[in-house]
Amino acid sequence: MKRASTRIRWNLKVATLLVALLVVLPAAAHGQAQRDPLPSWNNGPAKQAILTFVRDTTDPHSSKYVEPDDRIATFDQDGTLWTEYPLYTQARFALDRVEKLAPQHPEWRRQQPFKAILGDNREAMSKFTEGDWMQILAATHAGMSTEAFEGLVRQWIATAKAPRFNRPYTDLVYQPMLEVMRYLREKGFKTYIVTGGGQEFVRAYSERVYAIPPEQVVGSSIVTRYQLVDGKPELIREPKVFFVDDGPGKAVGINLFIGKRPIAAFGNSGGDAQMLQWTQAGKGARLMMLVYHDDAKREYAYGPAGGLPETQVGTFSDALMAQAKKQGWVVISMKNDWKRIFPFDK
Amino acid sequence: MKRASTRIRWNLKVATLLVALLVVLPAAAHGQAQRDPLPSWNNGPAKQAILTFVRDTTDPHSSKYVEPDDRIATFDQDGTLWTEYPLYTQARFALDRVEKLAPQHPEWRRQQPFKAILGDNREAMSKFTEGDWMQILAATHAGMSTEAFEGLVRQWIATAKAPRFNRPYTDLVYQPMLEVMRYLREKGFKTYIVTGGGQEFVRAYSERVYAIPPEQVVGSSIVTRYQLVDGKPELIREPKVFFVDDGPGKAVGINLFIGKRPIAAFGNSGGDAQMLQWTQAGKGARLMMLVYHDDAKREYAYGPAGGLPETQVGTFSDALMAQAKKQGWVVISMKNDWKRIFPFDK
Repeated sequence: MKRASTRIRWNLKVATLLVALLVVLPAAAHGQAQRDPLPSWNNGPAKQAILTFVRDTTDPHSSKYVEPDDRIATFDQDGTLWTEYPLYTQARFALDRVEKLAPQHPEWRRQQPFKAILGDNREAMSKFTEGDWMQILAATHAGMSTEAFEGLVRQWIATAKAPRFNRPYTDLVYQPMLEVMRYLREKGFKTYIVTGGGQEFVRAYSERVYAIPPEQVVGSSIVTRYQLVDGKPELIREPKVFFVDDGPGKAVGINLFIGKRPIAAFGNSGGDAQMLQWTQAGKGARLMMLVYHDDAKREYAYGPAGGLPETQVGTFSDALMAQAKKQGWVVISMKNDWKRIFPFDK
Repeated sequence: MKRASTRIRWNLKVATLLVALLVVLPAAAHGQAQRDPLPSWNNGPAKQAILTFVRDTTDPHSSKYVEPDDRIATFDQDGTLWTEYPLYTQARFALDRVEKLAPQHPEWRRQQPFKAILGDNREAMSKFTEGDWMQILAATHAGMSTEAFEGLVRQWIATAKAPRFNRPYTDLVYQPMLEVMRYLREKGFKTYIVTGGGQEFVRAYSERVYAIPPEQVVGSSIVTRYQLVDGKPELIREPKVFFVDDGPGKAVGINLFIGKRPIAAFGNSGGDAQMLQWTQAGKGARLMMLVYHDDAKREYAYGPAGGLPETQVGTFSDALMAQAKKQGWVVISMKNDWKRIFPFDK
């Protein structure tokens, strides 16, 4: 009885506190409701499209309401969540790794594609074929356990710096997109990265950088082989492509890994077109957006849509721009829609 | 002001209700704390192993505490969560589908393996090779969109009945395992199915039957191809194996789909050994369990471990039993550890 009455007293105390909170908090909450969830976005059609979509799909009284379990949003990474120009970050990792491994491979001084990398021959590197990149991938991404690879990526990404900005690559994430992802999660969405890049590469930092856990990163992968090493099981990375999560592969990957169709999808290049198409083909409210890199001053300008320079990374062609217009996909102008690009911008 | 005071009055009302709840509920909750989370388990080492593991990994004061994000538990399906004997449910689906499609394929009356199925030649069917099953798979699981396939599975599983029990296959789930999964989820675990069966097959009913959403079902899969059909994107299932989630493939699949190592794993046959091994090889508290089918009366008895009959479905060999003993994997005796097998048992 003593314990029960203590419990009742304690509970009454808690209840009193709750009364106070319930009377006081609403005013604060009312103020908070006015808080802009997307402060780094300029007011315009892109920002408005996001706000309208979220309101429509999360308001239980809306005809476009979507159950929380089905609130799936997918994001391309390179060029959509962080800078990809002039070279994908993962390619930089591979090149740095070639340099680091070179002393153990004297033959590389005479063999392409390694010779070009070690001689910093930009001209030759810009012409690397898929076969060249496969050789680089095999030399830098395979022949080790998944754990060892994760360790290499973590170490590299903590120390390597992007030349133009002289900052870690993980600083070059787009503040407006971080806000969109956070806002969607606050509203009960599950946010996924769906990247043409390496799934295990991105997983090594996705939680820290994007607050996205490993199981919500879908990407390209190579074959892994189960093997006992000194009696301990390891997954050994093989120099063989398993799955290419790009273009039509993004729709395949979404179905394979998530098993649900997204209701919102964000990309920036031709490799994202099928993901947006797949997203749009479902019933009910949908949001498809493409980041357009038209800000040479604060980041980069490349297209070639709208007469911007050609690129070897994510291509935004005139055809993609026309498709976006036709399908009602919202094009985000980095220059006009984003007040701030990087978290470190003032 | 009027609206604000209405809000305060309303909140006071809510608060009053909360006081009542806070004083009244604890007594009920106290009773509930004593509630057995595993009522269909007999007291014994298997039940104790589960309770101890969950207490150790979820008590913040325990040296074996595991953060909620890392509380991953994986479950084989066939023979671990539901009945697999004498034939996998998915194989039954395939055979039924052959019967259904036969009128459109008169040539099947003369062609193996179809002839054996249509003639109900059990002897011939028991000798089907992997090549035979691939032909059956191609004829029954491919050549349609993922959506169409899901529809077929949903329809079949809602109507087909398991011969011995004359009940839907989804009734033949193990009540004790449903309790383990629910208990783990209540304790902050994420429960995954990791099955040698078809990922899209299991996803068609996993949410309803196991409360496991599609993205937490890892399984075997065939290739899908993105294709526009009348301008609408479809994923077409191709007659080509993409990934076999069995044996070593279960460790590969876990890494591929989850990207984290489980801390608990449940299986019932040799195809689960590597999943348990992979689980055990991580640091900290681990729980590895194997269901042993030794209950011919209430379900089935097969091994061949312990002298039980041989089987064509999940094999529990003497070698696996020895491995379990050596590694400290807990063997669940259906006969002795389970008070109740199916939800419909009294």
